[in-house]
Amino acid sequence: MKILGIDPGLRTTGFGVIHKQGNKLSYIASGTIKTPDADLPQRLKTILAGISEIIRTYHPDCAAIEKVFVNVNPQSTLLLGQARGAAICALVNADLAVAEYTALQVKQAVVGHGKAQKQQVQDMVQRLLVLSGMPGTDAADALGVAICHAHSGETLATLGGLAPALAKKGLRVRGGRLVG
Amino acid sequence: MKILGIDPGLRTTGFGVIHKQGNKLSYIASGTIKTPDADLPQRLKTILAGISEIIRTYHPDCAAIEKVFVNVNPQSTLLLGQARGAAICALVNADLAVAEYTALQVKQAVVGHGKAQKQQVQDMVQRLLVLSGMPGTDAADALGVAICHAHSGETLATLGGLAPALAKKGLRVRGGRLVG
Repeated sequence: MKILGIDPGLRTTGFGVIHKQGNKLSYIASGTIKTPDADLPQRLKTILAGISEIIRTYHPDCAAIEKVFVNVNPQSTLLLGQARGAAICALVNADLAVAEYTALQVKQAVVGHGKAQKQQVQDMVQRLLVLSGMPGTDAADALGVAICHAHSGETLATLGGLAPALAKKGLRVRGGRLVG
Repeated sequence: MKILGIDPGLRTTGFGVIHKQGNKLSYIASGTIKTPDADLPQRLKTILAGISEIIRTYHPDCAAIEKVFVNVNPQSTLLLGQARGAAICALVNADLAVAEYTALQVKQAVVGHGKAQKQQVQDMVQRLLVLSGMPGTDAADALGVAICHAHSGETLATLGGLAPALAKKGLRVRGGRLVG
């Protein structure tokens, strides 16, 4: 299964593609899409076209995108929202299922705790995917989202197999979590 | 020239298509795209697919979209931004030039002053386009954006013809406005 991870942004959108085979994760590609210093529609077009091109090139089976924080500046929040909307459009336009994870979830999945620094994420992404060099922060975040999704899917599959036993205890799996 | 106007929203996106021939504006179509009560990617997909379908049906030559306000609730601002991003993606994906206008500009163009109420916009849109019934607020806002763009283009063209005379006075036209 090939997973495309996206770290959305108006200036720079990070992407990372990984391959998941059983428990083994391997690196396929990563990088950034940088938008020109143009008007908003042109910048969104660059994000849309860039991600569409990545999908045509690497044929991912599913996608995961980072949930963004609201900024102290409402105008920045609005701009970031539009950039994220463009990224999601490229994914759904290619009929990819899109999972969403917070930065906290990504850090927990990659580093093991939610208070990790950017550099720790980069470092762990490099180790987990056995990269010869350290990826840039945006690419590392995108690869981190993909890794987070790979782990989450694993959990889901594992829990899915336990469904009958769980049902006997009045429990079931919803959204990757056990609920009563 | 056919102009597509869009009033973006996450739940309801208004659209309106008008025809401009010289000074004469006429109505072609209007309505709303309503998104299902689903997850964000599915809702954005509905907006993207809905506007794409409208473009395939009416073949507009250009598009105009309303600039949105930042909400007091940052999460709402983020959601609205993503919806607007999806709408713009549908437009640029069809290679349409996209103009952006604030609600104030739309009200000034349609009603004549920026403090107009929703109902006044609906009323003037109905009169200007000689509609037999009053359009809903979202459709009226979308038609209003299209009318605003029709007038703005007119203004630009008129001012463009005056460029040599203006230049003698040290003035020029930028973004539809006279600047010194």
